[in-house]
Amino acid sequence: MASDASAQPVLERIREYDRRMVVLRQSAALLHWDQETYMPGAGDDGRSEQIALLESLAHEELSSPVLGELLEQAGATADAGKPGGVDEALLRELQRAHKRAARVPTRLVEELARTASSAQTAWRRAREQAHFGTFLPSLERLLGLRREYAEAIGWEGSPYDALLDEYEPFTSTAEVQGVFTALQPRLTELSRRIAESGSPVHNEILCRDYPVEAQERFGRQVLKSIGFEFERGRLDTSTHPFSTSIGGDDVRITTRYNARFLSSGIFGTIHEAGHALYELGFGESVRGSSLAEGASLGIHESQSRFWENVVGRSLAFWKHFYPALQRCFPAQLSEFPLDDFYRAINLVQPSLIRVEADEVTYGLHVILRFELEKALIEGDLAAADLPEAWTASCKRLLGIEPSNDAEGVLQDIHWSMGAFGYFPTYALGNLYAACFTEAMQRDIGPLDALSERGDFATILDWLRRNIHSMGRSLAPQELCSQLTGHPLRAEPFLNYLEAKYTPIYELS
Amino acid sequence: MASDASAQPVLERIREYDRRMVVLRQSAALLHWDQETYMPGAGDDGRSEQIALLESLAHEELSSPVLGELLEQAGATADAGKPGGVDEALLRELQRAHKRAARVPTRLVEELARTASSAQTAWRRAREQAHFGTFLPSLERLLGLRREYAEAIGWEGSPYDALLDEYEPFTSTAEVQGVFTALQPRLTELSRRIAESGSPVHNEILCRDYPVEAQERFGRQVLKSIGFEFERGRLDTSTHPFSTSIGGDDVRITTRYNARFLSSGIFGTIHEAGHALYELGFGESVRGSSLAEGASLGIHESQSRFWENVVGRSLAFWKHFYPALQRCFPAQLSEFPLDDFYRAINLVQPSLIRVEADEVTYGLHVILRFELEKALIEGDLAAADLPEAWTASCKRLLGIEPSNDAEGVLQDIHWSMGAFGYFPTYALGNLYAACFTEAMQRDIGPLDALSERGDFATILDWLRRNIHSMGRSLAPQELCSQLTGHPLRAEPFLNYLEAKYTPIYELS
Repeated sequence: MASDASAQPVLERIREYDRRMVVLRQSAALLHWDQETYMPGAGDDGRSEQIALLESLAHEELSSPVLGELLEQAGATADAGKPGGVDEALLRELQRAHKRAARVPTRLVEELARTASSAQTAWRRAREQAHFGTFLPSLERLLGLRREYAEAIGWEGSPYDALLDEYEPFTSTAEVQGVFTALQPRLTELSRRIAESGSPVHNEILCRDYPVEAQERFGRQVLKSIGFEFERGRLDTSTHPFSTSIGGDDVRITTRYNARFLSSGIFGTIHEAGHALYELGFGESVRGSSLAEGASLGIHESQSRFWENVVGRSLAFWKHFYPALQRCFPAQLSEFPLDDFYRAINLVQPSLIRVEADEVTYGLHVILRFELEKALIEGDLAAADLPEAWTASCKRLLGIEPSNDAEGVLQDIHWSMGAFGYFPTYALGNLYAACFTEAMQRDIGPLDALSERGDFATILDWLRRNIHSMGRSLAPQELCSQLTGHPLRAEPFLNYLEAKYTPIYELS
Repeated sequence: MASDASAQPVLERIREYDRRMVVLRQSAALLHWDQETYMPGAGDDGRSEQIALLESLAHEELSSPVLGELLEQAGATADAGKPGGVDEALLRELQRAHKRAARVPTRLVEELARTASSAQTAWRRAREQAHFGTFLPSLERLLGLRREYAEAIGWEGSPYDALLDEYEPFTSTAEVQGVFTALQPRLTELSRRIAESGSPVHNEILCRDYPVEAQERFGRQVLKSIGFEFERGRLDTSTHPFSTSIGGDDVRITTRYNARFLSSGIFGTIHEAGHALYELGFGESVRGSSLAEGASLGIHESQSRFWENVVGRSLAFWKHFYPALQRCFPAQLSEFPLDDFYRAINLVQPSLIRVEADEVTYGLHVILRFELEKALIEGDLAAADLPEAWTASCKRLLGIEPSNDAEGVLQDIHWSMGAFGYFPTYALGNLYAACFTEAMQRDIGPLDALSERGDFATILDWLRRNIHSMGRSLAPQELCSQLTGHPLRAEPFLNYLEAKYTPIYELS
C-alpha cells in the first residue's frame, strides 16, 4: 500500500481524518484531566457539555460516510494478523472503529449515554443505601440497551463478544473463558493454602502516620528512577487515580495519598506510571495517529501491573528503594526490617472489595464479575437475581460473603456506566504481564538483578522496543505470540505467584 | 422577534450554532490556560495544533453559509443602537462576526496566521539583539496583509477603522482621535508639573524582600474581599498574567510575583480580578451565548483598571487593607506609615516601558502607539522609519527617549502578532473607568467611604447591575451614554487624576 503511489492521496486524506479525531480526543482528555484536578467546583456543568461536544465531533469524523468510502478505496479490512506495516494497521483500526460507529444507530448511542448518566445517579444512591433494588430498574434498562447494541454490532459466538471487543479487540469470550478456566482452580487453591499456612504476615507497619508530603517526595523519586520524564508529564492528585495522554509528549498521571496507609500512594503511583510509560513510549511510526494507543486494555493493564506488582512489590525493588523510603519516614521505618516490610506489602487475604485485593485473590474478583456479566448479557441470569448469584459466587471463589449489597454487587461503578465486558481486561493484564516478564528475562536476564541495582533503564528499554513502540499496530494476541511464542496463557502468572508466595508464606 | 412564534425555530437554530462556537472557544481557552500554567514543557507542539483545530472549527461554524442564511431569515442587522432585547443583540453580534468572517478569504486568514507566527520569532530575536532591522521585513509583510484585510472587511473613514472595530466595536478612529486629542495635552501638562514639583515621592519601600508565599496569601485575601468567588475561579501564576473564561462558572486568573517588588503581584492580581469579576457577572439572559463577553476590550479594561487603580491605588482602600498587609510583612512594613505607602504605590515618573508606567503617563504611551500604527496603516509612515518616529514621539510626549530599539519600538508583542488597533483600548479603559466611577458615585455615594469600610459588595453590586450583567448586549458607546448621559469623554479621567495627584505631589 505505502509503496503504491496512486493510493497515497487516499491514505493522506484518511490520515487527516485520523489526525482530527486524535486531536479532538486529546483536547477532551485535557478537559477531563482538569475536571479531576484543578477545575473550580462550580465548573462541572459547563465541563460536561464541553467534553460531550468534542467527543461528538470526533464521533462525527469517525462515522462519516466519506471516511467509509476512503477506507473502501484504500482496501481496508478489519482483520488482524495480516502482514503489513503501520499503514495497513492504521487502515485496519480505522475500519474497525468506523464499522462499529456506523453500525450503531445514533438514537441508541444517545439513549445509552442518557441511561448511563441517570443509572450512575441511581447506583450512587443505591450504594449509599446498600440497597440493590434502587439500582435494579436502571440496570435492567442498560442491559436491554447493551444487548441491542451487541446485535447492532454483530457477533458469532456470544453477544458478549461484541462488548468485549470494544475493550479487548480480537479476543473472544471463549478465549477469555479458556484462560480463566485454567486460572481459577489454582488461584483458589493457592489462596486456600496461604490462608491455612498460619504464617504470620501482617501489615500494621503500613498503617502508621505517613505524612502526605513525604509520600509525594518519595513517589517522585521512584517515578524519576523508573524513567517517567517530568518534562513530558505531570503527577497530581485526584479522587480516583488515572493516567491520560494529552499529547504525544504530555502524559499525566494522578494518584491519591492515604496518610494512614502507605501502600495506596506508592503502589497507586507506580501503577499509573506503568500506564504512562506505555503511552510515552509510542514510536515515531505510530505517534500522532490512532495507533498511538494501547493494543488493548488488557495489554495496557499488563504495563501498569508489571511495574506495580512484578517490579514494585518484589524484594529486589525494595532492596534498592527501602533505604530511601526509610529516610523519608525515619520515625516509622528506620528500625523496621526490610524482609518484614516486603512481607507486609504482599499480605494475601481474601476480602470483599476488588480494588483492595492482593495479587493472588484479585483474579478471583474478576472471574466472579466476568461470569455474572456474561450470564446477564447472554440471558442466563436475570438482573433481579444478581445479588443472590453474587453472594453464591463470592462464597465459592473467595470463601467469604458480603454482609450487604454495598460491599457486594454494588461496589463497582462499571455496570452503572453500561461497561459490560470491561472487567476481564484487569485480569488479562496480570496474565499478559507474567507472559511478557518471562520473555523479557530470556532477553535481558533476571529482572531482580536489574531492580536490585536500580537499572530500570534496561527494563524500560526492553519494554519500549518490544511493546511500547508499536502502540496498537499489533493485535494483543499477535503481540503475545511474537514475544512469547504462545497465545495468552495462565501458567506464567500462576508460576510467578507460586514462586513468589511459597517463601513469603513458608508454604511447603 | 422573540414574540413572533414563527421565527422561533430559526432563532433556535442560530442559538445552536452560537452555542457550539462558545463551547469550542471555552475548550480552546482551557488548552491555552493549561499551556501557560501546568503543561509540561514538551507539550508545546501538540498544544498549538489542538488550539488551532478548535479555533478553526469555531471559525467554520461562524463563517458557515447556512448560518448566514439563518441570520438573513431572522432579519439580523449589524447596526448598534436599535432598540431590542438580547435576541436582537445576539443576532446583531453574530451578523457582525459572520460578515467579518465571511468577507476575509481563508487564504488571507491563513497567511496572516503563518506570517504572525514567524514574525513573533523574528520579533523575539530582534528584541534580544535590540535591532529593529531584524524585525522589519516581518513587520512590512504583516502591514501589507493587514491593509489587505482592512480592504476585505471594508471601511469608510480610515482603513484603521476596520482593524479597531475588531477590538472596540462600533467605535471609529475619529472618535478615538477625538478623546485622545482632549487627553494628551492635559496628561503631558500634569506629568510635567509632577516632575517639577520637587515633592519627594519614592518607592524604595516596595523594593525590599517580599516572600512570594505571603504575597499570594495577601492577594487571596483581597480577592475574597472584593468578591472573587474561588468556587467559580482560580488564581495561579504564569509568565504573563491573564484572565480567561473556561465556562460561565469557571473564570481563572493568573498573576506573577516579584520577590523584590511588591506592586507587581498585588496590582497585577487586582487588575486580572477586575477582568474576571466582569465575566463572572454576566446575567442569566446572556450566559452561555456570544453575548457573554465584554462589550469591547475598552470596556473590559475599564473593569480591570477600575479595581486596580481607582479602587486599588486609593488611600481609602489601603486604610482598610494596610493592617492586613503589615501582618503579612511585619519586618518590612510594621513601622512604615500608611501615607508614605500610599504615595509609594502612586509614584509618577516618565519611563520608557509601557507596562511599567504609572496612571498619569500610561495614556501617553498608548497615544504614541496609536498615532504611529494609524500612520503605518494609513500609509503615512513607512515601517523602516518607525524607530526614528518612535524616538521623536517619545521625546515629545514623555520628555525622554530610548537608548535602543529593545526599550523603544520593540518592547511590545502586539505588532508582531499583527494586532494593529489593539493599543487604544488600554487607554479607553482608563477613560471609561473614570466615566463609570462618576455615575456610580451619583448612585451609591463616595467610593472612598465604601472602600474604607471594606464594603466592596456594594461596589460590585452596582457594577453587576449596570455593566456586567448585560455582557455584550449593549455597544460600548450605548453603555456609556446610558450610564453617564454622555458619549465617552476624557474629562472625568483627567479630573480624577488631577484631584488625586494634586495632594500627593503637593501641586498648587
